[in-house]
Amino acid sequence: MAGYDSNNIFAKILRGELPAHKVYEDQDTIAFMDIMPRCEGHTLVIPKSPARNVLDASPGQLAACMKTVQKISHAVMKAFNADGITLQQFNEPSGGQVVFHLHFHVLPRKTGQSIGPHTGKMENQEVLATNAEKIRKALAG
Amino acid sequence: MAGYDSNNIFAKILRGELPAHKVYEDQDTIAFMDIMPRCEGHTLVIPKSPARNVLDASPGQLAACMKTVQKISHAVMKAFNADGITLQQFNEPSGGQVVFHLHFHVLPRKTGQSIGPHTGKMENQEVLATNAEKIRKALAG
Repeated sequence: MAGYDSNNIFAKILRGELPAHKVYEDQDTIAFMDIMPRCEGHTLVIPKSPARNVLDASPGQLAACMKTVQKISHAVMKAFNADGITLQQFNEPSGGQVVFHLHFHVLPRKTGQSIGPHTGKMENQEVLATNAEKIRKALAG
Repeated sequence: MAGYDSNNIFAKILRGELPAHKVYEDQDTIAFMDIMPRCEGHTLVIPKSPARNVLDASPGQLAACMKTVQKISHAVMKAFNADGITLQQFNEPSGGQVVFHLHFHVLPRKTGQSIGPHTGKMENQEVLATNAEKIRKALAG
């Protein structure tokens, strides 16, 4: 397995070199909107510290991410009146990974609605900003 | 969200009332073969203690599961010469959940091979037994 490349786009988001619609941050993790959402409210959770994926992550990074995944899951269900959550997490290219910084996909699901393809089309920035605000409100409420 | 139903099939596996091709066990978790695998080596990781899904799990249950998910990920990559891992985890019926005891799907992936549908066809018991043995060997090695 290749090592950690600190020029991946999530590392750049963490360093503030690229923008993101951030919805949550704590000591160990951040959560922000996926810019190619597979459904309304599709959110990513990543550790602040470097890890390529689940294969090289520390137990602490995985635990911190899952704690945030749970928080975000509750928030997106509230924000988008969702009935369930699908979690996906991809490791290495054949596992579906495209950005090589550990991340968890939190997908709010509604009965009868299927999800779109992974890395589909880029969402409008205003839609992402509006959805991010809904999640922040749900987290605060 | 409905509460925990102790008659779900994974609870029965945990109590020894139903068989499973177990590949790993520690104080907090077990891992066993999915009987409707979406790919060769499809393994499930569950906590021993009751939780319906990620929405009601404790941080400790999530951390323990992810620690085992990582162990199993390395083992299935070795056992099946996989190039990557796809993790999936479903919450509530609209999120894709079918058995209502928290579980993580560990899917060993190979370049160019797509995965089959969720809850597809039942695998032959001998194939599952052989694959379980490969994973146990990889974990021991």
